[in-house]
Amino acid sequence: MKITNETLATQLNHRSIRAFAKKPIAKEQLTAIYEAARHTSTSQFLQQFSILRITDEAKRKAISEIAKQDYVGGNGELLIFLADLNRNAKIRQHLGQDIARLQTADLFFQAVNDTVLAVQNALLAAESMGLGGVVLGSINNEPKKLVTVLELPQLTYPILGLQLGHPAQSPQLKPRLPLEFTVFDDKYPADFSLAEFKDYDKLVHQYYDLRDTDRRVDEFTTQIGSKKLAAHKSSRDEIMAAIQDQGLCLD
Amino acid sequence: MKITNETLATQLNHRSIRAFAKKPIAKEQLTAIYEAARHTSTSQFLQQFSILRITDEAKRKAISEIAKQDYVGGNGELLIFLADLNRNAKIRQHLGQDIARLQTADLFFQAVNDTVLAVQNALLAAESMGLGGVVLGSINNEPKKLVTVLELPQLTYPILGLQLGHPAQSPQLKPRLPLEFTVFDDKYPADFSLAEFKDYDKLVHQYYDLRDTDRRVDEFTTQIGSKKLAAHKSSRDEIMAAIQDQGLCLD
Repeated sequence: MKITNETLATQLNHRSIRAFAKKPIAKEQLTAIYEAARHTSTSQFLQQFSILRITDEAKRKAISEIAKQDYVGGNGELLIFLADLNRNAKIRQHLGQDIARLQTADLFFQAVNDTVLAVQNALLAAESMGLGGVVLGSINNEPKKLVTVLELPQLTYPILGLQLGHPAQSPQLKPRLPLEFTVFDDKYPADFSLAEFKDYDKLVHQYYDLRDTDRRVDEFTTQIGSKKLAAHKSSRDEIMAAIQDQGLCLD
Repeated sequence: MKITNETLATQLNHRSIRAFAKKPIAKEQLTAIYEAARHTSTSQFLQQFSILRITDEAKRKAISEIAKQDYVGGNGELLIFLADLNRNAKIRQHLGQDIARLQTADLFFQAVNDTVLAVQNALLAAESMGLGGVVLGSINNEPKKLVTVLELPQLTYPILGLQLGHPAQSPQLKPRLPLEFTVFDDKYPADFSLAEFKDYDKLVHQYYDLRDTDRRVDEFTTQIGSKKLAAHKSSRDEIMAAIQDQGLCLD
């Protein structure tokens, strides 16, 4: 017997939406999205994330250029989720305490976890109200430039963005790896053979990416074997330097 | 007008559950949790996370000792979420391609994001079915030991755990920072004064932590100012070395 309820149905129905109607997100909807993020689990109750809602046209344009995607900063809302150790650092400084612990890799990863958990709750909240959205890893195409554009203080770092709005497309459900490849009891498997992926490859190849409706998508293993994952230099490789420039993840 | 639906209500009702009944999670429920995780957003369609379900008693005990929490590995299910660049590396190797790109910080953070987004969907799926759970950052108390206990191959790294089960406690809702401290339009604020936190501190102080029912919790700013965040060495500081020992986050 397959279990279902509204939440599970919303989760299983997830598609990334990259085209949005001109209609704005209602204030009450935006608040509901923020509240979902606010109630997310947080490591050691440190609450180390913040949200920047980008309304400024120049900033939206700059972020869109970094992300190399027109829909970023277009119709709908653009939210940038920050790992935020600055707020707690400010509190500690006002109390006359040191902040070195907040600059460790340990605390940085705790903040990253807080932030990313909240991103998923925010996206699902939007989807539960009939809105759509897409998680924007593409904001990290130029890490140092992004920090400058956002005018971020030390001890904050942008982890992911969300572009949210009223969907103006309805993509097919993109087939994900079956559980046999991703869930294991007790021990991770020794190897994966290419032959095992045959059926899944077929499924993926049948999927049409509605970013370009006429185009079938490459098989999964073909995508993984492609040159996008071949050794190359990228401005994205600035990420660790950019994080450390923000005074984070130092020890 | 406040918007509500089942998903939002589940999100706003989140409490970490740390005491579970002996009753096992049904197979169908566990599958629903996995399916929610499986349908989560994934960076560049790389699908770089895996789940280890820990059933082995020796491993559960070892993880419980690392986490220093009896409920970890106790009643219910213990899931460890891995950032997994190994699966795609194996595919590339079978196709005769290099794997250096999968060893960059860029790709590692993409995998971390995939993993943590899936953790939140899995937890919420459980909560939507009346189960409870807690995100386990405490598995990272001893990063190198955890990798050994889990017998992990190169290019995998445990990010977070989830302990899930039938709740045997009903904690109060823990008051989170109001949105005025965490959501900003366009620009992050220059400072936070201690005075601003006064009302929130009062709220937090009124909350009882059901891990220790008789005990009121310290004010938020007192917790942040406390010695748990004072400069100190910790086995948790192995985290970056442990990640790099796994062949990840190298450039």
